[in-house]
Amino acid sequence: MQTVAIFGVGLIGGSFGLAIKRAGFTGVVLGVSSERTIAEALKAGAVDRGASMDEACRAADLIYLAQPIGRILELLPCLDPLVRGGALITDAGSTKSAIAECAAKSIRRAQFLGGHPMAGKERRGAAAADADLFRNRTYVLTPASKEAMTSVVVSDFVGWLEKIGANIIVMDAAAHDRLVAFTSHLPQLASTALAETVDGRGDTRVAGSGLLDTTRLALSAYDIWKDIIATNRENIAAALDSYIEQLAAIRMRLNSPLLEEDFEKACRFRSGLNI
Amino acid sequence: MQTVAIFGVGLIGGSFGLAIKRAGFTGVVLGVSSERTIAEALKAGAVDRGASMDEACRAADLIYLAQPIGRILELLPCLDPLVRGGALITDAGSTKSAIAECAAKSIRRAQFLGGHPMAGKERRGAAAADADLFRNRTYVLTPASKEAMTSVVVSDFVGWLEKIGANIIVMDAAAHDRLVAFTSHLPQLASTALAETVDGRGDTRVAGSGLLDTTRLALSAYDIWKDIIATNRENIAAALDSYIEQLAAIRMRLNSPLLEEDFEKACRFRSGLNI
Repeated sequence: MQTVAIFGVGLIGGSFGLAIKRAGFTGVVLGVSSERTIAEALKAGAVDRGASMDEACRAADLIYLAQPIGRILELLPCLDPLVRGGALITDAGSTKSAIAECAAKSIRRAQFLGGHPMAGKERRGAAAADADLFRNRTYVLTPASKEAMTSVVVSDFVGWLEKIGANIIVMDAAAHDRLVAFTSHLPQLASTALAETVDGRGDTRVAGSGLLDTTRLALSAYDIWKDIIATNRENIAAALDSYIEQLAAIRMRLNSPLLEEDFEKACRFRSGLNI
Repeated sequence: MQTVAIFGVGLIGGSFGLAIKRAGFTGVVLGVSSERTIAEALKAGAVDRGASMDEACRAADLIYLAQPIGRILELLPCLDPLVRGGALITDAGSTKSAIAECAAKSIRRAQFLGGHPMAGKERRGAAAADADLFRNRTYVLTPASKEAMTSVVVSDFVGWLEKIGANIIVMDAAAHDRLVAFTSHLPQLASTALAETVDGRGDTRVAGSGLLDTTRLALSAYDIWKDIIATNRENIAAALDSYIEQLAAIRMRLNSPLLEEDFEKACRFRSGLNI
């Protein structure tokens, strides 16, 4: 891996550039983003220089797509004619099936490997880039087949993920999307709905700190969630159905000693979380 | 106020004792609890000595009930014959209507004033007592009437709440219980239900940190929540109904640009929280 091109040098893309440089990558890191973002990324030390899409595709062994999902879906069909034969294209989108389908249709000359780093921060943008963003965090890879993990370019990329401290989990794109509908997308919508439900009920100074925790995700930006929801709608609807069912069951048990089991099960689950 | 008796010297009771002592209270603070708890409270400096219920009632101008709600409801009818005429009995229970009704029936010789300090910590017990627990935190008082706030004993007590830094909000017991059903009890059950819903879906290393925030309350102990739910069941059921309705509305809008309004409303609410 000699030349890496990062498309979308925000928090994730910028952190990836910074992280591999800190981990000893001595090749060139190109950034493909707006002029302002490139300036920020240069200042953060996340890229060596900005490049056009054409130039980046001609030069790169690894193309790292860290834009919003919608932009990745638009971009993939344009990349194939431009990339070096045998290069690796990977992405960092929060849903994987739609991107995997799009890549399967449009990428012929390069190899594609979907990825989802489970890492983030409240701040966005390259200025918040952090060489340790991926350290001890789950990084899901969703190869189209088992064989897709065995190529030299993929081994090289996986080696860099290990060097930057990521905990790699390999699973298929559909299983990933079903799972994150529960572990990530449902908590987001549960929090949004909770904030809306509590809104207007009275003086919120009369509240516990638990309201802050449970509604923290309500601060999330719709522009990111729009694409996530659009590309995982069925799984999210199923997760919401299960949650509504669970809430209705708890409502039925408000008068019953069985409610203790709900608290115990929930406590056991939460105590076992290791995120 | 010369002698204060704290019944139940756990986190809240112990912190109240510690806080008034630090704020300059020079009278005697008696603790009524199990032997082990009194030993802990003495070590923490939260009480001057342990006392029996009879002794504490004979001596105290202020009786501060910091036990679980169920225990307060059992205790109130026993206190009236024992207390000094004109003493103030207050409590720190998380629901107020059941306690207010019980006090209205059983307390004749003393004055009763319901209270709810919106303060807490993950650790329980007098060993975790903290003189600053109430500082800058809401302390709801629920007098039976406006006149109930004007007596000398109440003014004296309110003065101490101010000295320990609490932000006092006066409201009636029923309004308090309706409000906390949304601001405190609903977040608890939403969190419990969320943990149960996500449980068993797969490898939770594939999750965002938002799952930790939204399920933190799932760690809460049922022994506290049992009494809260038993004394605020109708309001909690109504809050759950509203939440389920909101979730169902969001589910309907997964396919609609109107979902952006949900995110905006929720974000505005959360940004305005000042707990």
